Amino acid sequence: MTHQAGRHFLQIPGPTNVPDRILRAMDYPTIDHRGPDFRALGERIFGKIGKVFGAAGPVFIYPASGTGAWEAALVNTLSPGDRVLMFETGHFATLWKKLAERLGLKPEFIEGDWRHGADADAIGERLAADNAHEIKAVCVVHNETSTGCVSPIAAVRRAIDAANHPALLLVDTISSLGSIDYRHDEWGVDVTVAGSQKGLMLPPGLSFNAVSEKALEASKTAGLARSYWAWDEMLEPNRNGFFPYTPATNLLYGLDTALDMLEEEGLAEVFARHDRHAAATRAAVEAWGLEVLCADEAAHSSSLTAVMMPGGKGADAFRKVVLDHFDMSLGAGLTKLADRIFRIGHLGDFNDLTLMGTLSGVEMGLKLAGVEHRAGGAQAALDHLAAAAAEPAMRAAAE
Amino acid sequence: MTHQAGRHFLQIPGPTNVPDRILRAMDYPTIDHRGPDFRALGERIFGKIGKVFGAAGPVFIYPASGTGAWEAALVNTLSPGDRVLMFETGHFATLWKKLAERLGLKPEFIEGDWRHGADADAIGERLAADNAHEIKAVCVVHNETSTGCVSPIAAVRRAIDAANHPALLLVDTISSLGSIDYRHDEWGVDVTVAGSQKGLMLPPGLSFNAVSEKALEASKTAGLARSYWAWDEMLEPNRNGFFPYTPATNLLYGLDTALDMLEEEGLAEVFARHDRHAAATRAAVEAWGLEVLCADEAAHSSSLTAVMMPGGKGADAFRKVVLDHFDMSLGAGLTKLADRIFRIGHLGDFNDLTLMGTLSGVEMGLKLAGVEHRAGGAQAALDHLAAAAAEPAMRAAAE
Amino acid sequence: MTHQAGRHFLQIPGPTNVPDRILRAMDYPTIDHRGPDFRALGERIFGKIGKVFGAAGPVFIYPASGTGAWEAALVNTLSPGDRVLMFETGHFATLWKKLAERLGLKPEFIEGDWRHGADADAIGERLAADNAHEIKAVCVVHNETSTGCVSPIAAVRRAIDAANHPALLLVDTISSLGSIDYRHDEWGVDVTVAGSQKGLMLPPGLSFNAVSEKALEASKTAGLARSYWAWDEMLEPNRNGFFPYTPATNLLYGLDTALDMLEEEGLAEVFARHDRHAAATRAAVEAWGLEVLCADEAAHSSSLTAVMMPGGKGADAFRKVVLDHFDMSLGAGLTKLADRIFRIGHLGDFNDLTLMGTLSGVEMGLKLAGVEHRAGGAQAALDHLAAAAAEPAMRAAAE
Amino acid sequence: MTHQAGRHFLQIPGPTNVPDRILRAMDYPTIDHRGPDFRALGERIFGKIGKVFGAAGPVFIYPASGTGAWEAALVNTLSPGDRVLMFETGHFATLWKKLAERLGLKPEFIEGDWRHGADADAIGERLAADNAHEIKAVCVVHNETSTGCVSPIAAVRRAIDAANHPALLLVDTISSLGSIDYRHDEWGVDVTVAGSQKGLMLPPGLSFNAVSEKALEASKTAGLARSYWAWDEMLEPNRNGFFPYTPATNLLYGLDTALDMLEEEGLAEVFARHDRHAAATRAAVEAWGLEVLCADEAAHSSSLTAVMMPGGKGADAFRKVVLDHFDMSLGAGLTKLADRIFRIGHLGDFNDLTLMGTLSGVEMGLKLAGVEHRAGGAQAALDHLAAAAAEPAMRAAAE
Repeated sequence: MTHQAGRHFLQIPGPTNVPDRILRAMDYPTIDHRGPDFRALGERIFGKIGKVFGAAGPVFIYPASGTGAWEAALVNTLSPGDRVLMFETGHFATLWKKLAERLGLKPEFIEGDWRHGADADAIGERLAADNAHEIKAVCVVHNETSTGCVSPIAAVRRAIDAANHPALLLVDTISSLGSIDYRHDEWGVDVTVAGSQKGLMLPPGLSFNAVSEKALEASKTAGLARSYWAWDEMLEPNRNGFFPYTPATNLLYGLDTALDMLEEEGLAEVFARHDRHAAATRAAVEAWGLEVLCADEAAHSSSLTAVMMPGGKGADAFRKVVLDHFDMSLGAGLTKLADRIFRIGHLGDFNDLTLMGTLSGVEMGLKLAGVEHRAGGAQAALDHLAAAAAEPAMRAAAE
Repeated sequence: MTHQAGRHFLQIPGPTNVPDRILRAMDYPTIDHRGPDFRALGERIFGKIGKVFGAAGPVFIYPASGTGAWEAALVNTLSPGDRVLMFETGHFATLWKKLAERLGLKPEFIEGDWRHGADADAIGERLAADNAHEIKAVCVVHNETSTGCVSPIAAVRRAIDAANHPALLLVDTISSLGSIDYRHDEWGVDVTVAGSQKGLMLPPGLSFNAVSEKALEASKTAGLARSYWAWDEMLEPNRNGFFPYTPATNLLYGLDTALDMLEEEGLAEVFARHDRHAAATRAAVEAWGLEVLCADEAAHSSSLTAVMMPGGKGADAFRKVVLDHFDMSLGAGLTKLADRIFRIGHLGDFNDLTLMGTLSGVEMGLKLAGVEHRAGGAQAALDHLAAAAAEPAMRAAAE
Repeated sequence: MTHQAGRHFLQIPGPTNVPDRILRAMDYPTIDHRGPDFRALGERIFGKIGKVFGAAGPVFIYPASGTGAWEAALVNTLSPGDRVLMFETGHFATLWKKLAERLGLKPEFIEGDWRHGADADAIGERLAADNAHEIKAVCVVHNETSTGCVSPIAAVRRAIDAANHPALLLVDTISSLGSIDYRHDEWGVDVTVAGSQKGLMLPPGLSFNAVSEKALEASKTAGLARSYWAWDEMLEPNRNGFFPYTPATNLLYGLDTALDMLEEEGLAEVFARHDRHAAATRAAVEAWGLEVLCADEAAHSSSLTAVMMPGGKGADAFRKVVLDHFDMSLGAGLTKLADRIFRIGHLGDFNDLTLMGTLSGVEMGLKLAGVEHRAGGAQAALDHLAAAAAEPAMRAAAE
Repeated sequence: MTHQAGRHFLQIPGPTNVPDRILRAMDYPTIDHRGPDFRALGERIFGKIGKVFGAAGPVFIYPASGTGAWEAALVNTLSPGDRVLMFETGHFATLWKKLAERLGLKPEFIEGDWRHGADADAIGERLAADNAHEIKAVCVVHNETSTGCVSPIAAVRRAIDAANHPALLLVDTISSLGSIDYRHDEWGVDVTVAGSQKGLMLPPGLSFNAVSEKALEASKTAGLARSYWAWDEMLEPNRNGFFPYTPATNLLYGLDTALDMLEEEGLAEVFARHDRHAAATRAAVEAWGLEVLCADEAAHSSSLTAVMMPGGKGADAFRKVVLDHFDMSLGAGLTKLADRIFRIGHLGDFNDLTLMGTLSGVEMGLKLAGVEHRAGGAQAALDHLAAAAAEPAMRAAAE
């Protein structure tokens, strides 16, 4: 039944398909992390990386998973017992909250239904009520990887400002950076948390904190203990392309290349491509007669689409059919959503034809697994993509 | 208009997509081709390679393209001025004929319409008429890469035998070996010509002669000058895993791995997979309302499908649209068929989802290029593949 | 003057030369870290890794530098304000102490002269005096990378036991694991800290905690805040080959291969090889008339040799000459030893001829930089290695 | 006894150590050899390759070993029964002669003692005596890989011209191109034969014919049968970066990179580096009290050094000791020289420290194998290299 000819389709919402060019860049001998070649590498990277975040200030790079960058954002800016306001967008927001608790913070969770992004108004109201300014930070997941809903970061900032509240704004962009439009400086974010293994097209193992002046200032008095994650020891060596301890050199080779690739394609085009693929995927879901988990038209993620199983269960059996017969990995439903949804990742180094292979695999899997649906979803996506491809030509012709 | 995110779809009928495992196997330092490690490599390869050909006798490996193995087959077995009977199955049969002429042979061509395989009866008749046995060899292309028609090699052998004719049977399997069922010994082939870059999943640069006892015997008196291609100097060193001159070591690393991969999947499953993909592709072509070039149901190739353009032209413009918009390379029509057909390669390391990406790209390209067709070809292929995937389960359930 | 033909000599004491086989293993697409293939990978690794530590209990693997594993060892076992006894073996022991301070511990430092390993007797005396058992852990660097001195871990354990003291024993083996004989269980170590980029022959980016039952028990009540480094959340998923957050998958591919390579060579042979190279290096230093930094014959490191500059300065200028003319990176003197020593790394995937290239480069550099020395060091090493190579033959002949 | 830690030393005189950068360049998916990306690749290569030959005219690239390019040079320019004058410089000159015989030519061999290059005067005398101009070509091996002697190509050309003889000059540069100064146009060579696996730093599998106008003209009437090797069918497609049959695409990726690397280092520096390494090697041989095979000071090869065994035998046992104990491959003596010499390759991507590792391995091997010699050869080479490294500085200081 199972055969493995051809290339595996890794359509979980990250880690994503690492392009050959990045894998080859990483496939070089490690170099002296105190020598001149490393310095040149580091300076190239620090010179380019801010652009992806839309950040003019420092971006700290950790040899760590994204989870580490969550921790870094908190321990550098907060003190034991600090209140932080978090929004329950889904599984990962919940994990971040637990992490905050383990670190000795007092997170306060605004409940959500896992089908919407964060509610800026609710955040604003809560802050307005916090006259004592006990809340030190607002934490929001930009693109909730467990649900495929995007939170309106600019609106959250405006809500904070409207409440005249000094809380820092910390944002997780692990599954949006380099895939969905994001603007650290323009949106007034204080710490942006990111990881290597999604839109940056790298294997997991690097994570990031982009940091505002205000966050840097906060870090000077923040009382949580920290060493590995400490920004203060990084600032100085980073200026010369170096790191305070041994960096993950080979992943940095890959990052150097990934930043070039994003620059070559152009961030605007990268975002447009993700938007197009997400729209085509939703067209397929609709044609199948299935429901997208995200219940807010304005909040659909461009990096993944979570699909609800008819009858509310059986997603894992369905995913197994797809893996066994078509060698494609889809994302599972997590905790509350376990077995109730499957997630299609369409982010990173990805194109129209691979999306068509992906959606065809989903449709064939629905058939084989006996999931109630209408045929024609792949065809709907095909029509969407063909129309999108025709547009530039039509635009050009009209000009 | 063009963007290059994601993986290129190389859907020409060879070279094919080289799997990562083979590329990595080749990405090792070259070793001493006279040393013990090389000997072990050579012995492994010579111990495995015959199985792919269905040949118990010697298989010679050249650091050369398939064209070189055509030349090798002729110069080792024939003498200047020898008549050889060839069948005009298409562009590559015609090239082989020209090559024979350049080498000083007298090829005689049985005309074909480029829409069928070789006609065994016609070959039998011609041989029967050759009472003087002036014809020294019959040359047939097993899978004509320019048309997607397969020739019935076993029938050709029977026709030769029925005519009681001593001619050697030389067969080009460049685009069929490792993709379409082939049996050198069982079908009584004297020299099988093959290349690395198709079903063997390697880059181009190696080619092969599998050789019968009769062919070896013929080589002792064959009068054509030869040195690089000479079998006699290879036999002895090959016995110990070595070569008479510097071999293409890194491609041999890849060959070693490729033979393992074919063994792991199982040749029968490899052939069934190619058959399935070819049938799904024809289902798509039919649904589009287009015509497959191969006009004989029994001769459809499982490694590629050539599709006729409605109106008989515009294939190259269509292929350019597909390349520019969807980053997919399709095969062109060659010489007589230039601009009149396009060819879809579905061979080598390939799977259902990549085929769906491929056929979706063709359908989107037909739309964009304004080629008259009906929508739904990709959907027809999807239905075909889903049904095929369901079969083993149904078979298992029935037992 | 500088040219870059040929391979760079990376002779710092880590990161080390990553073998091609490991680089190629890492050069594969990332896979689903929740899928069956990953599970198989994880189970393979967890099944093998303990052997390298000499540990039957759990080994935790972090996507992090070695510095992170230092932090992990402390935060999982200790509480704010805990006293820990550390020994000043050199730069890295000092960094570990600073890290402990940043985390809110109270490290107590037994002073050292940076030319010896830890003094087990001194540790025993201090513990004997600690009647209140305020000291919760003893932290020792096994192989001090900044000096090339090895600490006697088994003796430290005996000293702790002799003092009847309940303190945990935490040992840093970052530059010794897989290079110098080490036995977590046998020597009674509670937490062994290690990194990927030295004897394990990987790029940096993974680090390790091997953990005793006693340490695990301590972690249940340890009061330091932790999340990323928390052992408790790892235990359960690790049992099935999984991780609580996204692991550094591609580095794990490399680790899987590295463990195979160590097994194939055999740990005993790996240690013997490092011992031989270190002895040959010291023979060279002696022949040059220079002085090895490590002042204790019994404490010489087998993974690196630190050499004192005649006149006490100029090491950095000398290293620059070597880098510019011979494309070799040597280790610098750190903090107290800055410019006063250079360090020759001879660990990891390394052999006799590469060592000869290394020592020849040092000797040529001494000449070019005008450093006072006698010629003949490389020759002395050559004689040493040739004699060592002859031994097995002589032994075999004598039997 | 044998262990395999560290990197193998491949010190045969080719194939040479393929640099990582070239291996990685080759480790990419094969592309459509008729598409625009291939065209760009081909045009880049054809635009650069002439410079390495010192040739303004066409350079033909074969998917073949160097042996194939020997054959190509002959079959494109000569007719059956043509006399060619060859010089017995050693094993490879002898092989080329045999190849010529197999092709139906009448080679005439000027005897040599395998310790000198070709004798231009002897060639001139023979041509002067050939009043009928029956000799159609003079074939000389520039760098005889079996002996380490270089032939004076410019002098051979002058001798031909002095004899007013119209013979073509065909030169084998398989082990000199990209290592030893060579000038196709300036020296009046008609066909230069080369291979990929030596100075070009690639794996074997590509070979070359650089061709003069006169040779191209000769090819129009040359009567030897040819197809695979035929220049005429290459000229036209090569103009656009294409080939008449499937090229060895992945090796061409490597060639593209190799040509960049030679350009970056600069050919003059490449030659100087090879000269320096050869001189250092001869210094070692002299210090050992051994004899270099090449008996002409002016003819020493810069790409390899052949060393005579004291007593005239035992070279193979010695080489086995070196391989078993030090994981280094040295070149064997061939045919007449079997077991009487060993050859040290010092060409390709190679540097001072790797040479020191190589020569140290030879010296240790001599010791272990009980070969009579004096110690100190490696030291002599070290002194030579250190002095050479000091020179530019001294020159700069003097200016």
